Amino acid sequence: MAQKTSIPKGTRDFGPEIMHKRNYIFNTIREVYQLYGFQPLETPAMENLSTLTGKYGEEGDQLLFKILNSGDYLKKSDNLAKETSSSLTSKIAEKGLRYDLTVPFARYIAQHQHEISFPFKRYQIQPVWRADRPQKGRYREFYQCDADVIGMNALFSEAELIKIIDEVFQRLNIKVTIKINNRKILYGIAESIGAPEHFKTLTVAIDKLEKIGIEKVFEELKENCVPEEACQKLKPVLMFNGSLADKTDFLKSFLTDSETGLQGIDESEEVFRKASLMDIQSSMELDLTLARGLDYYTGAIFEVITTELEMGSICGGGRYDDLTGVFGLKNVSGVGISFGAERIFDVMEELKRFPPGSEQAIKVMVVNFGQEAEEEGIKIVQKLRANAIKSEFFPKPAKMKKQMNFANSNNIPYVIMAGEEELKSQKLTVKNMETGEQQKMSLEAIIDQLQ
Amino acid sequence: MAQKTSIPKGTRDFGPEIMHKRNYIFNTIREVYQLYGFQPLETPAMENLSTLTGKYGEEGDQLLFKILNSGDYLKKSDNLAKETSSSLTSKIAEKGLRYDLTVPFARYIAQHQHEISFPFKRYQIQPVWRADRPQKGRYREFYQCDADVIGMNALFSEAELIKIIDEVFQRLNIKVTIKINNRKILYGIAESIGAPEHFKTLTVAIDKLEKIGIEKVFEELKENCVPEEACQKLKPVLMFNGSLADKTDFLKSFLTDSETGLQGIDESEEVFRKASLMDIQSSMELDLTLARGLDYYTGAIFEVITTELEMGSICGGGRYDDLTGVFGLKNVSGVGISFGAERIFDVMEELKRFPPGSEQAIKVMVVNFGQEAEEEGIKIVQKLRANAIKSEFFPKPAKMKKQMNFANSNNIPYVIMAGEEELKSQKLTVKNMETGEQQKMSLEAIIDQLQ
Repeated sequence: MAQKTSIPKGTRDFGPEIMHKRNYIFNTIREVYQLYGFQPLETPAMENLSTLTGKYGEEGDQLLFKILNSGDYLKKSDNLAKETSSSLTSKIAEKGLRYDLTVPFARYIAQHQHEISFPFKRYQIQPVWRADRPQKGRYREFYQCDADVIGMNALFSEAELIKIIDEVFQRLNIKVTIKINNRKILYGIAESIGAPEHFKTLTVAIDKLEKIGIEKVFEELKENCVPEEACQKLKPVLMFNGSLADKTDFLKSFLTDSETGLQGIDESEEVFRKASLMDIQSSMELDLTLARGLDYYTGAIFEVITTELEMGSICGGGRYDDLTGVFGLKNVSGVGISFGAERIFDVMEELKRFPPGSEQAIKVMVVNFGQEAEEEGIKIVQKLRANAIKSEFFPKPAKMKKQMNFANSNNIPYVIMAGEEELKSQKLTVKNMETGEQQKMSLEAIIDQLQ
Repeated sequence: MAQKTSIPKGTRDFGPEIMHKRNYIFNTIREVYQLYGFQPLETPAMENLSTLTGKYGEEGDQLLFKILNSGDYLKKSDNLAKETSSSLTSKIAEKGLRYDLTVPFARYIAQHQHEISFPFKRYQIQPVWRADRPQKGRYREFYQCDADVIGMNALFSEAELIKIIDEVFQRLNIKVTIKINNRKILYGIAESIGAPEHFKTLTVAIDKLEKIGIEKVFEELKENCVPEEACQKLKPVLMFNGSLADKTDFLKSFLTDSETGLQGIDESEEVFRKASLMDIQSSMELDLTLARGLDYYTGAIFEVITTELEMGSICGGGRYDDLTGVFGLKNVSGVGISFGAERIFDVMEELKRFPPGSEQAIKVMVVNFGQEAEEEGIKIVQKLRANAIKSEFFPKPAKMKKQMNFANSNNIPYVIMAGEEELKSQKLTVKNMETGEQQKMSLEAIIDQLQ
């Protein structure tokens, strides 16, 4: 009996049409990363579980895909009857699939610190795996597209990453707003409202402002024991509206007693100033309510939304001061961004921004008429290929209808016919598959036109 | 305490230098595949174990990496104390990492047969995983680079794949011999020596001829009960030497009573004839001792070796008639090849065939002099990038020596200095990092030169 064919839930096959579109996004991001001096890195799909565990919180640990040890994997358990799923796991699985690209990158830096010349600018475009409950737009296997500058604390890098974000979305033809904040400003706010010990609670709650509204944010703060007085002091910050200069002025007076806060403003001003030298087309905004959940950010933070439709964040990042500490390499500052390729795909699809003819697709098909004409057809397709024109020769002298159907279903824009008549006259028939128009041309003229 | 940093044995990190070289190989293969009308496909890293198991022989099943089910994975075992590693596996692991690209491709074809317009020409360049014992040149994670034409039995496809092999190795600048045979010829030989029931044993033994010599081949055949008489008849075939025409003539008389064998010769002649129309530069050879181990080949088979050094097969493939049958789609013929990227890398490295400056690397670094000169530096690097020149601005006004060291260790060929003096004179200093030579030039002239 034939086997049922299916793939694990939350995973996907990518056929040619989708691949062309995905590659368009990945290639755009990759080209911009390279243009800005970032170097490629790839790490293994499998990491030791000791590398991954404890880095993503308790929930994250649950979502790691674990790989069963090879061979007689039960031999490490001496009382199998007493084992539970959680007691057994560490005995039968030593490796897991990477959950993101950040932890493997930190592991790589620590492991290769003596070979790397800092600042190290790397990009990494690889899949990651999470045993999350699959749902619309959430997959168990998906790509991340990260770039980081590590080993140097220089605000130029923040500005450069902002410019990269700008350039990628310009090239993809998506209008975006780049939201910028600084965790030091957020910490300064926590200090200035007299609640520095609630810093984490505050960032988590503030982060939800846009989603749940100001009332619910205050409810959440109260539930988490942030004093009423602090909340009252926080209100004007969350409600403040104005230009970049207005916000900066307001913050300078609001944070006047917080050294960290003032430093955050200085940094923020410097990032905006440096970015202003780089011809940025997208709108940039200092967003005091931007907090970003990840604990490891310590300086600038970024988040990007498109202004063309509703779709959460499509890119984000920030500066961190101690990503590699857990792997034994202390005080290494870095700053990075990550493009959300899956969401960007959805945006491009919805806005119909994928360019019509993909560069990777076949440009022309040569019809196979069989017998002597087949030999001529083979020579013609080879001539096209020798001129770097992506082309196809129908493998068999099948019926014309079948060959034309093939060209149509593969979106091949031109078809060349070289039958008996054409070979006599030395002029080939070229059919434009979109308009149906036919023309007689020499092979050289066709090559000139298609190149 | 800091964690030890390491990666699972048999896996590798690929830093920038290696990545540039690997990408050079992958991009070359990808470009040629696309030029010849092959379309990209990607399948998930994880497949259901039911898809993978039983496809690679018993040994292969042992080498599958299996993924532990999420959550309380032991709940499917009702008497844990009685379980052994092998009895428990199917209850606690439903998914595995792909072992090659062929089985996932066959699964994809069967699953999507109604959406695909045949012939389907796909290429797939993705990693695969095998729990093999790691050793020199053998890894637990490595890339495969496959191309197949499926759904049409036309010998043009064989010729086209041979041309692709030729073109890839021409571009990589490696001299190769493309060995060609046909399983029908091998079957014909088995019939003609009166041992068709020993076909499999014969192919396995013949395949080793070059490695172990003719005496050992006969020993192996005897051990496997192939009659002495058949072995005697086989001898002249294995020892035959001569031109393609000689071999063909010899075979035509040797296989005169085997319909299958004669069909194999016809096919082989046709493949050589079609390939001869395609301007193939590499040497092609009908090798009667080429057998290829894989059971699923039924027609033409290929194997490629380089004539420049000792290094086994660096590419192989062949025609199969029933790859998708196990997934319920019968009688679909296909033909495919696979480049051994890891071995090709070793060949390129040993022969020093990687081109000196990788296209992906940084071309120029702008020195950061700080203060006003920093602003000018930022504008210069952005101008370079706007002209598609991969470039780098040192993020901080560090000491000149540090900045120069950075340029050196990243193999950046040019450094631009725009200090106080340069800004006054509007001429920048360009240093050639290889020769040490310095020149004064306008930014426009630099851009012209580097583009």
